[in-house]
Order: sequence, then structure tokens, then C-alpha cells
Amino acid sequence: MGFLFAAVQWRFINPPRLSFGLFVLFIFTSSVLTSSTVEGRIRHYKWEVKYEFKSPDCYKKLVIAINGRTPGPSIIAQEGDTIIVELKNSLLTENVAIHWHGIRQIGTPWSDGTEGVTQCPILPGDTFTYKFVVDRPGTYLYHAHYGMQREAGLYGSIRVSVKDGVSEPFTYDYDRSIILNDWYHKNTYEQATGLSSKPFVWVGEPQSLLIQGRGRFNCSSPILGSTNVCNSTNPKCSPYVITVVPGKTYRLRISSLTSLSALNFEIEGHNMTVVEADGHYVEPFVIKNLNIYSGETYSVLVKADQDPSRNYWAASNVISRKPATPTGLAIFNYYPNHPRRSPTSIPPTGPLWNDTSYRVAQSLSIKARQGYILPPPVKSDRVITLLNTQNEIDGYRRWAVNNVSFNLPHTPYLIALKEKLRHSFDQTPPPENYDYKNYDIYKKQDNANATSSNSIYRLKFNSTVDIILQNANTMVVNNSETHPWHLHGHDFWVLGYGMGKFDPIEDPKKYNLANPIMKNTVPVHSYGWTALRFIADNPGVWAFHCHIEAHFYMGMGVVFEEGVEKVGRLPSSIMGCGETKGFNRP
Amino acid sequence: MGFLFAAVQWRFINPPRLSFGLFVLFIFTSSVLTSSTVEGRIRHYKWEVKYEFKSPDCYKKLVIAINGRTPGPSIIAQEGDTIIVELKNSLLTENVAIHWHGIRQIGTPWSDGTEGVTQCPILPGDTFTYKFVVDRPGTYLYHAHYGMQREAGLYGSIRVSVKDGVSEPFTYDYDRSIILNDWYHKNTYEQATGLSSKPFVWVGEPQSLLIQGRGRFNCSSPILGSTNVCNSTNPKCSPYVITVVPGKTYRLRISSLTSLSALNFEIEGHNMTVVEADGHYVEPFVIKNLNIYSGETYSVLVKADQDPSRNYWAASNVISRKPATPTGLAIFNYYPNHPRRSPTSIPPTGPLWNDTSYRVAQSLSIKARQGYILPPPVKSDRVITLLNTQNEIDGYRRWAVNNVSFNLPHTPYLIALKEKLRHSFDQTPPPENYDYKNYDIYKKQDNANATSSNSIYRLKFNSTVDIILQNANTMVVNNSETHPWHLHGHDFWVLGYGMGKFDPIEDPKKYNLANPIMKNTVPVHSYGWTALRFIADNPGVWAFHCHIEAHFYMGMGVVFEEGVEKVGRLPSSIMGCGETKGFNRP
Repeated sequence: MGFLFAAVQWRFINPPRLSFGLFVLFIFTSSVLTSSTVEGRIRHYKWEVKYEFKSPDCYKKLVIAINGRTPGPSIIAQEGDTIIVELKNSLLTENVAIHWHGIRQIGTPWSDGTEGVTQCPILPGDTFTYKFVVDRPGTYLYHAHYGMQREAGLYGSIRVSVKDGVSEPFTYDYDRSIILNDWYHKNTYEQATGLSSKPFVWVGEPQSLLIQGRGRFNCSSPILGSTNVCNSTNPKCSPYVITVVPGKTYRLRISSLTSLSALNFEIEGHNMTVVEADGHYVEPFVIKNLNIYSGETYSVLVKADQDPSRNYWAASNVISRKPATPTGLAIFNYYPNHPRRSPTSIPPTGPLWNDTSYRVAQSLSIKARQGYILPPPVKSDRVITLLNTQNEIDGYRRWAVNNVSFNLPHTPYLIALKEKLRHSFDQTPPPENYDYKNYDIYKKQDNANATSSNSIYRLKFNSTVDIILQNANTMVVNNSETHPWHLHGHDFWVLGYGMGKFDPIEDPKKYNLANPIMKNTVPVHSYGWTALRFIADNPGVWAFHCHIEAHFYMGMGVVFEEGVEKVGRLPSSIMGCGETKGFNRP
Repeated sequence: MGFLFAAVQWRFINPPRLSFGLFVLFIFTSSVLTSSTVEGRIRHYKWEVKYEFKSPDCYKKLVIAINGRTPGPSIIAQEGDTIIVELKNSLLTENVAIHWHGIRQIGTPWSDGTEGVTQCPILPGDTFTYKFVVDRPGTYLYHAHYGMQREAGLYGSIRVSVKDGVSEPFTYDYDRSIILNDWYHKNTYEQATGLSSKPFVWVGEPQSLLIQGRGRFNCSSPILGSTNVCNSTNPKCSPYVITVVPGKTYRLRISSLTSLSALNFEIEGHNMTVVEADGHYVEPFVIKNLNIYSGETYSVLVKADQDPSRNYWAASNVISRKPATPTGLAIFNYYPNHPRRSPTSIPPTGPLWNDTSYRVAQSLSIKARQGYILPPPVKSDRVITLLNTQNEIDGYRRWAVNNVSFNLPHTPYLIALKEKLRHSFDQTPPPENYDYKNYDIYKKQDNANATSSNSIYRLKFNSTVDIILQNANTMVVNNSETHPWHLHGHDFWVLGYGMGKFDPIEDPKKYNLANPIMKNTVPVHSYGWTALRFIADNPGVWAFHCHIEAHFYMGMGVVFEEGVEKVGRLPSSIMGCGETKGFNRP
């Protein structure tokens, strides 16, 4: 059986294992090389992925760092630029893959970085080259998309500015990217092993909330014993500082890559004007604090218009779950006050954690900006309803969609479909709906048993698809969690949010078809529903999943295929696992 | 570039990821299938490798288990049997490889399981089939040979009995396998990251010594804090029990797979008669306690001839390093006393830890048994002297041989040599000696700088090779560590041990050519030397390295090639990494 792939120049010589200074030096001196072309610049990064000891919240643990950093280096580019990331895996025995969150990968579906969907994992010692165009300005992210490596610290930000000569519909003096995160002290193996144990062992709420990679754990906690792993005086875990000049306006690009937590972000005494969400301009609205769900990005404008003689707290707080993690804190520092001068005020504690209607209301206020509205098709060709439930399979705790718990195959779908390896995954289509009539979303189900599958939804190319995310009760009485769903390869229109069970006759009449925001990540609120629409116009295979890392690991996701026959010749660098082991270049 | 491989039936269908009960059930019900042939039985094992929480010394940590166990299942076979192990990697993001320690792999060098030398690592979700013949009776081992996974618990024993009708030169009533180990609470990533950090961070002495997978950590240690990870009442960490019937004789197959520690094993009040070492019959000698180095196996005969009204301690103690780990304890239980009845006596504390001459004397007393002597060639064709030193490279702490610190390539040598991928490793031969005249082995070197390389020794097929292991001072004043060296693919004759610097004129005159024992693992004692001889008659590529896992990771090893042109067509299942990515089957 011989498969032939011509492919572009996707061939790399792997140097012998050298983990010494020379290689690191090379990386640091050549980490960004840019060159201009007619189409846009080429921005060339060389990244080395490696375990390192870090103390982001004063507690020392092993993280996966890029070039020694977590968060990793920021990608700063301009609309139309080509990003090339040569990713060297210097982990000892572990593979890796990185997803470029919010980048649609038009024409390059093999660069989406989703292990099991668009590529095989990158082996230790290998260098894999991601190459893609950032075709829209906005605020994006990158992070590991393999196992639970994201929460090990493998993430960073992508900022894409508008083309020269193009102006944005708002002004500001300075631009800052801030990633919010939650942080666990247990490693990802411990967490994943617990999740897949019988009985299920959950790691619990995170120990800290990080703001741009910095948090603060209470090192005098009796849980720690006399081990020497927590040091409150370590400058590496001093709070992140946002220094502002009085009177100036700041664009803060706030994003969240939490493992679990929904967050509320607030700057003491300062209003924020929301102007961008997931790369799309928002009809500006003013808020005191911002609810943000894992995988979302927002730009807010903040004017330094308060008493400049003091500093202020910037705070992130857990919402939608009963908080058991201290407030995450940064210092909003008015120049020339000392950046380390802690405010004497009480940090913001955020809204009531269980005020769902507050969160739904803020979700509903995010609309596309006048003058930048891309109108959605007025009708859809297909409606797929996805009931979100917590389940059990053979006594193992799982999450499921329409009672099917998703598991990733070891042969990536993109290759399997393109090379017609039909036995590498279940060919039966997954269900398009649930038992709408009889299912009580407010009730803990008597029978929580589900099935597991790796089957996928195959979409007609260029068709318009509606997705109804329907939330429900978990396996705990009176409990329904918030799930942030993230779609790869597309932006979708957010047509509506509602509470209770989605009514397929009545609720579509209330869809916002006038100025819906486009996003790539959206929450489905507790006991609520969220309606989305997108056009299946990007040839490839695309994951759509809950962005809570443990939930996706436990089956809360689906996969869409569209126009795979239009995908260009696959680079052989994405192959080598499952049934593509041994696939070669001609 | 097309490579053609016919290969046997090395093709596996990878099922979709299913981590549920059904698969486990299947494994347990079908873990050993045997069928007879004229040549010997085929013993077929299905193993699943997975992270699990275990408390081998009462402290709960993540281990790599086989079918839920550490040590993994024992392989019990008969001389001439064919072992087939279908190894499914169910780790989440981590690869794996297993070495069959002491099995020479004649005709199957690709089944040696040494990542980077004989195979690519096995990816998550993949099932790799090891197939080899156990061609000699004796006591062998298996363990991970990738990164530092061995110390995560991935190991077990292989016991090969003589053919039907063949009798051994000693008798016993019962046969027991006991693996000794040391145990760390930090995970392998933490250890490896520390070792490759600048400054170097060493994990320190092990927390416990395990006897057949059981030890006992002091759970009331203040180091632990209030975490719930240590439970002294957990029955999983009650001492291992060796139950004996008064008057009967036991063959105890004692082996060591320590990460670091040299051990001394003793059964209170009982003598032991050494009868086997690494699969070869020993001229019997009686000892009170046994020194055993990582990678060694011994059979000792023990008669239950003491007061049967009580139980006795079996104990392992650290030797050759200043002990900082409590004695490892098992119960030598005289039936019908209660197996959990702890002896009231003080457990054996072993010999003085720093009595090198005691250890050298015991090494010297191990000789081949009369009637079973395989005489070595009287002369060798080549002498390779290997000076063992601790070094630095660019400020990183390393171990080296003749001032060259070994690092593994990402393209396995076996494939690279067979397929002539010459640029995948350094083609310059490594040094055959050190500066014998001027080097002071008793002195901490002024300049500890070394170089690193992945070059190998290429041996003339069927030639006789002598290896002189020469120990020296480390980077600490007045310190020389004991290193157990293990050779893959061969047994060697142990021609002699000595203290001080090996004299190439005088010392060979004292070689034991009359009845040297053959082994696969041998210590080089502090400030001493060990002389070995072997015949390079096994086509393949073979690692020879210090069996202390951290030392090999830090460069203490070499690789030999011999007759690679005689190796049969390589199975493509061993390929897929480094420059063999994309190698396919025709």
C-alpha cells in the first residue's frame, strides 16, 4: 500500500539531541525574523518547548514553557502577515501540538494544531513548522491542543493589527494584551488520571487565578508542609503591573485561557468600554466589569481618569461556580507612583457568582458594531441541537452531547478523510438532536448512561448551519455548569441566548439577525441555550468543543467536516501516527 | 526517496481511543495465551501501559502501570519459548518503549526496546508487538528504556526455566522472584528537568526501598503537610511476605532495578547460597548477605532451617553511598505463623556502606560453575578502555566516558545504519582510551569540561572485545561512585576487578580465564576497575551504559554496532521518528 504525497517543502532535518546552551542561544538570537512581501510580512519564530520549573503563583511546579516562558512569546503581526512557527519539541518523552485559537486557517487546515483532528502529535526531538496567514485584525490566542497540556502553561497571545492606512473605529493611546488564567498545583497527568479513574477523582477548584501569568498563592497554607516549594518573596510571582499615564486611554486586550473557571475582570474605580470580541468590532457599551469565559478575547478601552495619586486593583474573580479560589490581582499603576505600591483599598470581589441573569444580560449586550456588520444568511440549511450533559459510561464519569461522549481517534480525521481511511473512526453520523419532548433539563437524570463515539458531523460545503447549544442539569441535583464552546476554522454569528429549554418554533423568531456579533467562543449559560449560525465554507475538519480542558478531555466536543475534497495536498509532516504511521513522501 | 520493507506481519489496526472497562476486561481475560510448537511454546501477552495512582510505600503518586500493576506482570517461560508482547500505549501524551533486560535478541535486534538505539518510541494509542525468543534459562527483567520512565514503575521480571527433561545443578522446593527497587516521590519529569537545569538540581536520595513493589514511608514526616497523600494503614503498602515451610529450600531470584542505589539484601538469621547470576550458573558460595547492583539478577538458595515459631526480617540496605533511606523490609514468614506478624528483632542493617573491599571481595567470588564453564577466548582483538567521570558541559552537569558525554539521537541507530542515514549521528569514532599516563583517578579534575556526542563504536563482526571500565573521582573531592554497567545483546565474561588504576601490562596477567562468570551487568567499584570480554557475534546495535537511570540520562553510556549488514529486514513498526518519519511499508 503506497501513498504518495508531493507537498511543499515540509521536510526537516532533526539535529541530534542537544539540550545545551548553544541551541538556546540560537533560539534567543533568532526568535523573530521578519521579511516583507507584497502580500504581507513573513514573521518567522523559532520556539523550543520544554519543561521548566516556574513559580507563577509563588508555588514552584513544572510547567511547559516556550523559550523559557509561560505565557509564551506574543505573536505581534499585521493583517495579511504569514506566521511561521518552527516548533521544536524538547520534552523528554512527551509529544505536543499547538492550536492557533481564532485563526481560521483558510487554505491551511493542517496548521490548526488540533491533535487527532488535523495532525499527529509532534514527537520529542522533532521540529514541526506551522505556517498560516493572519487574515483578520484582532485579538487571538495560541495554546497546546493535546491531552491537557494547555493547563501546564503552554499558551500565549496573538495580536493582529489592521493594515497600514486602515483605521479602527475607536482610538486609544496604548495597546496591552492580558491573558487571564486559573492555575493548579497538581500536574496534568495527575488531573487526567483522576478524571479517567473509577471512581472519578476531581482535582477541585484551582489554587490561584493568574493575570498575565502571575498570581499569588498563600505560602503559609498548612497544606504545604515543610517542603520548599512555595516562596512568597519570589519576585517572579509579584503581581502583574499595568502602568498607565493619567489622562491616557488604554486598549486592554483581555482574554481567558482558564482550565475551568468563568471569570469576571474588573479594574477598581474604572469603567471599561467593550469594543472588540474575538476579532470583531463590538457596538461599544460601557461596563463596570467584564464576564469572560475560557477561549474568549475582548478589547476594552479604559481611560486613566481617576485620582492619579494612587494605584488601583485590577481583579479577576470566579463566577458561575461557587468560588474557592482567591481573587486574582494585578496593579493598575498610575505613573509615576511606584508600580509595586499595593492599593490600600479592598480589591473588587466581582458580581454575585450565581447571578446568571447578570451574565446572560452582558452576553446579550454584545452586538456587532454599526458599519462593521456582516449580516448572517436569513435562513439555515440545517439545525443541529447539542444537549450538554454529564454522564457515566461503564461507571466512568463523562460529559456528552446528545448522550454521546466524544473521544478522539489516533488517526487524525483530516488525514483519514482525505486518504479515505474509513475504518479509522466510526462512520455512523452522530445524533442531530435529543429527546426534546421528554427531556427535563432541570432534573438530574435517572439514567445518566451514555455511549462514546468518535463519529463526526459532515456538513454540505457552503451550507448554513445553526447550532443550538442546550444546557441541562448535571449529575448533581440543582446544578448546571456554564460551558464555553469554541469553534475551530470559523466565526459564527451569535443569534441568541435564552434561559430554559430552547423552543424550536418560538425562539428562532427572536433571533438577532440585524446585528449579531461574530465570535469563535461563546458560553452556554446554566440551564440556558445559545443559538449560533455559521457557513460551512472552510474546507477542512474542525473541532467544536467546550473550552474547559477537562470537559473536552471527558467527551464534551464534536467535529465538523466540510469540503474536505477541496483541501490541498496534505503536508506529510502532519502524519505518522495511528493508521498514517509509515505514510511517506514520494 | 522510497524505502521498501517487506517485513513479517507487523501491522496493527489501532482501535479508536477507548479507555473504558471493556478493553481492560479483555486484557485481563486474555493476558497470557500460550500455544505449543515443535520449537517451544508461544507465550502471548497483551499489556496496556497507563498512568495510575499507587501507594507502593504508602505515599500516593502517579506510576506507569502495566495492566494496572507495578511491578508489571511476570513473564514465566521455558527455554526456547517465543514471547509475544502486544504493548498498547494508553498514556495520554507520552510515548513508551520496553527493554527485555538480559535477553540477547539473537536475530531480533529490533525487539531490544531501547528507544533511540533499536526503535522509535511507541506513540499514545499505538500497539507495538515485541517478539523474541528466550533462548537461555535464567532470571531476567524488563523495564522502560525511554527517558526516565523506568523509575515511574514500569518494570517486571522474566523467569525462564530449563527445558523439559533438563535438570539444574542444584535442587530446591519452591521458586520465587523478588525485585528490589528504590523509590522517589517526585515524578520523573521533575527529576529529569532538575538534572538538565543550570544550576543542576539533584533529587537526592530515594524516599524508600521497595521489595517486590512494597515499601514503607514514614507518613508522619513533617515534610508532608496536611495533604492526604500518605496513609500508613493502606494495605497496599504492607510489607511483602515471603512465606516458607519449615525445612524446605527456596530459590529466591533476587534482582535490582534501582534508579540509583546499590543494595545489600539479607534475610535475618539465614544464609544464602548463590547459584545463578544474570542467567549463568555460579560455583556455589555461601553468604550472609548479597550485594546487588541495579540491573543484576541472582538466584540464591535459602533453607528454612531456623526456629519456625517466629518470622524473620528480609531487608535491603543502601551501600556504597551514605544511606539516607530507611531499610527496606519484607517478612520472611514461617508457615503457619501469621504472615503479618512483624518480627520483634532489629532488622539487619547490612554491611558498612563504605566498605568497598567487602563488595569487591564478593564480586570476585562470583565464578562460573564447574561443568557449566564457557571458556572465553584467550586473547582479544581490541581493547576499549572507558574512563568514568563526572563532568560539565557549558555549565550543565553531565557524566562522561573518556570525556565524551553520550546523548541519544532521535533517529534510532539500528535504522540509521541499516538504511545508511549517515547524517543522523556523528560518524567520528569515539575515543578508545583516556590519557592513561597523566590522569589522576583519585583527584577531582581541575578542568571537568567534556564534550557531548552521539558517535558509536563499530566492532568487527565476531571479533573479541575487551572493555576496561575505569572508575575515577567525581566532581566532589574524595568521592567515587559505584556504577553498574549493563550490556545489551550479549553476555560478557568478567575477567577481573581491581582497585586503583588499571595497569594494561600487569593486570591482564591476572585475568581469570579459567572460570569467569558471564553476566550482562557488572559494577565498577569506587576508584576501581572492571575488565570484561565479549564476542561481537550478535548482528545489531547495542547499548552499554550505567544502569543508574539518571547517569545514562546524563551521558554515561556508549553504543556498539556489529554485523549490522547481517540484520534481517527491519520491521517498519520500529520506524516513524527522526529521519525515519514517513518510512513506509511497500
